[in-house]
Amino acid sequence: MSDALLDGSAEAIAVAVRAGQISARAVIEATLARIAARNPKLGAFTDVTAARALLRADALDAARTRGEAVGPLAGAPFAVKNLFDVKGLTTRAGSKINRERAPAAQDATLVRKLEAAGAILVGALNMGEYAYDFTGENAHDGPSRNPHDLEHMTGGSSGGSGGAVAGGLTPISLGSDTNGSIRVPASFCGLFGLKPTYGRLSRAGTFPFVASLDHLGPLARSVGDLAASFDAMQGPDPADPALADRPFAPTRPGLDSGVAGLRIATLGGYFARGGERQAFAAVERVAKALKADRVVELPGAEIARAAAYLITMTEGAALHLDRLRKRAHDYDPDVRDRLIAGAMLPGAWYAQAQKYRRVFHAQALALFRDIDVLLAPATPCPAPRIGQRTFVLDGREMLVRPNIGLFTQPISFIGLPVVAAPVWAAKLPIGVQIIAPPWREDLALRVARALEREGVSEARAA
Amino acid sequence: MSDALLDGSAEAIAVAVRAGQISARAVIEATLARIAARNPKLGAFTDVTAARALLRADALDAARTRGEAVGPLAGAPFAVKNLFDVKGLTTRAGSKINRERAPAAQDATLVRKLEAAGAILVGALNMGEYAYDFTGENAHDGPSRNPHDLEHMTGGSSGGSGGAVAGGLTPISLGSDTNGSIRVPASFCGLFGLKPTYGRLSRAGTFPFVASLDHLGPLARSVGDLAASFDAMQGPDPADPALADRPFAPTRPGLDSGVAGLRIATLGGYFARGGERQAFAAVERVAKALKADRVVELPGAEIARAAAYLITMTEGAALHLDRLRKRAHDYDPDVRDRLIAGAMLPGAWYAQAQKYRRVFHAQALALFRDIDVLLAPATPCPAPRIGQRTFVLDGREMLVRPNIGLFTQPISFIGLPVVAAPVWAAKLPIGVQIIAPPWREDLALRVARALEREGVSEARAA
Repeated sequence: MSDALLDGSAEAIAVAVRAGQISARAVIEATLARIAARNPKLGAFTDVTAARALLRADALDAARTRGEAVGPLAGAPFAVKNLFDVKGLTTRAGSKINRERAPAAQDATLVRKLEAAGAILVGALNMGEYAYDFTGENAHDGPSRNPHDLEHMTGGSSGGSGGAVAGGLTPISLGSDTNGSIRVPASFCGLFGLKPTYGRLSRAGTFPFVASLDHLGPLARSVGDLAASFDAMQGPDPADPALADRPFAPTRPGLDSGVAGLRIATLGGYFARGGERQAFAAVERVAKALKADRVVELPGAEIARAAAYLITMTEGAALHLDRLRKRAHDYDPDVRDRLIAGAMLPGAWYAQAQKYRRVFHAQALALFRDIDVLLAPATPCPAPRIGQRTFVLDGREMLVRPNIGLFTQPISFIGLPVVAAPVWAAKLPIGVQIIAPPWREDLALRVARALEREGVSEARAA
Repeated sequence: MSDALLDGSAEAIAVAVRAGQISARAVIEATLARIAARNPKLGAFTDVTAARALLRADALDAARTRGEAVGPLAGAPFAVKNLFDVKGLTTRAGSKINRERAPAAQDATLVRKLEAAGAILVGALNMGEYAYDFTGENAHDGPSRNPHDLEHMTGGSSGGSGGAVAGGLTPISLGSDTNGSIRVPASFCGLFGLKPTYGRLSRAGTFPFVASLDHLGPLARSVGDLAASFDAMQGPDPADPALADRPFAPTRPGLDSGVAGLRIATLGGYFARGGERQAFAAVERVAKALKADRVVELPGAEIARAAAYLITMTEGAALHLDRLRKRAHDYDPDVRDRLIAGAMLPGAWYAQAQKYRRVFHAQALALFRDIDVLLAPATPCPAPRIGQRTFVLDGREMLVRPNIGLFTQPISFIGLPVVAAPVWAAKLPIGVQIIAPPWREDLALRVARALEREGVSEARAA
């Protein structure tokens, strides 16, 4: 089992498995060995489903031997943020309290869909408590560590999802993104991450955070893997009432069709200030490679971010109200205090924030009338150090956690699909958001793929 | 111009106008005379659009003379709660503050639609301030008075809409219903009232109260008029983003097809206690006439009512927050205090109430799997006296205003279509709610029509 294959893409593993050049068992055994060797340093996995993975690998190998189709992701290992239900595991959602819950009776829909495409689940991943986090630090399980520099954050809340893929443990992981929790670890860990359109992928069998903002999606080291896993997870699911009734829109087939004819612009104004130079340099580099010289503004982004905060705090508190009353001492104190603050916000503010969402959404749709794709920084800076509480942005000392989502929050607030694409300059990478109109994940993926092909954007296994 | 025609239905007027037996001008002149004579006692109208109405009547008569089609409601007068925009009038929404607004530049969509069907607007009607009311009393314009006993309430907030039709001023009026504001005046004034499915009729050009609960609809003295006006108001309207994309579903043609084969049940439990004997007797009389001996329960109605309250208070406060800060002294003190209380409710409660809505909606849909129509009281009692602050329900002295909506709130909370049908026993009438599944106004109207035909339910002009 070559290191190159494990450092490469899920699609390359699947090609080798389908061709009989390597068995799924060999892939999984090598993957489990890597997890065993590297995870103690990375803190990415909280559960490894070794027995289940080996069983599935053997079944897949047997099916292949019988000449059966084994799927586009045959034999490719993946892991999921520990808020996804995995049959037999307790869905801890990064918390201490949820560990008392009974093990899940069945897999989350997206786990089943990825496995139906041949991918093999190898475990569950560390995350910020109850997904209310941007750092990847967890008070109960320890921090997820950035594979490119172990003293630095992975970003969160899908911290283990970033660490596992950037650390070469799996080519694909699943995370969730409420205000940036996929795009931030993608940016800090140097990965491609997809936050699909709100309502696109089923959330059945996952522990929620903010129902009106929660998205699930993949992180990967290649755009091809991102598109292939997204395609495998699309489709109807009667178990999720919030799922939009959209036709299956495969993105993998048209992925290499290039960006000729696409009208691409950079977001200015709010999205061009308040971050470190490296964040804007990455966007400029991407824009230059795409010959996108237009700069446009999305007015009201500050208000949108404040409204997203308010909705997050309020809905987050609503979800936790009973637990907060009974078990406040079992939360990470930081998370607890955020939730308690949210419980005291007036509902009238929340109602106004929801109303502003419709206004801001309409403004974004107006922008997309003559633009196909927008560019913006994913994070205001590369990964801070673990434990770092403040950073200096635009000459001002700011708290780290509440300000990492500066550029991601206004976009997820209105559910737009985004691919975060990594750009390298210094030792640590930083991400660029490629933002498309609703239901046009294909556009964002095509742009990311073009950048990957030209070497402007690259995801590396550490 | 015979009193019988003015006391009769809009459809009968339209038949006479279309046949040339009477001119629209004669109808409008007689209507204006009645308003002038009776309104000082009733307090139903706040504006009379005499000049506009006579112009339209003349245009309609001229069109008829030229042999043009003049619509199913040709020449029938109607009036609207003063939260509907009427070109050239200030949309006061029952308030003092809104009187400073510029006159409306155009008519509300529903006004235009009714006029397109030949009906003629004759004015705007008194209402509870900002629709936050169940009594029909207004601190600035005086109370709407019940035409069947002037010392009694019309109910609200569409008080003038009840008074105008029960007082014989117009055969049809439009009102709005957030928690019961059409069904309550229909019950207290002895009228048929329709609260359509949430999202069925356009709200463009009306002053809102609680966006997620507001419905518009007609009140009338006959089920035929209710159905005909509802049919005239259906249809798409790009100006209302909350309007559901539903096909036009005319209810007038099948109105007389009877109730044979319909599975009708009475709501028990919550809906069979906490009201006066007369309320339940009316339901029993209706159920008996319909041979509906089944009683079913809709669990969670208490919680649904509490949640409807919470959403009303919170969204109401959100709408008024700026005005409350600047103009608190210009509100009716009772309305002001309700709004201020709402502004202080925690958002987490609101988020939980919205969540419960989905649960309760699913429970109601489950009931409709083997039932077509549900019966319940519209109000816990007939109209209280004007100024009456408490009443005795189930042996307990209760505040009047907050408890009139006992039986209407849980139903509008989930947007179900309801016809309120009047039943008489004592001097004052009381209504029965005929509740249908979403989008099945036709079923509720058919049942009301059968009751009207059998003389069980009857609307009288005082």
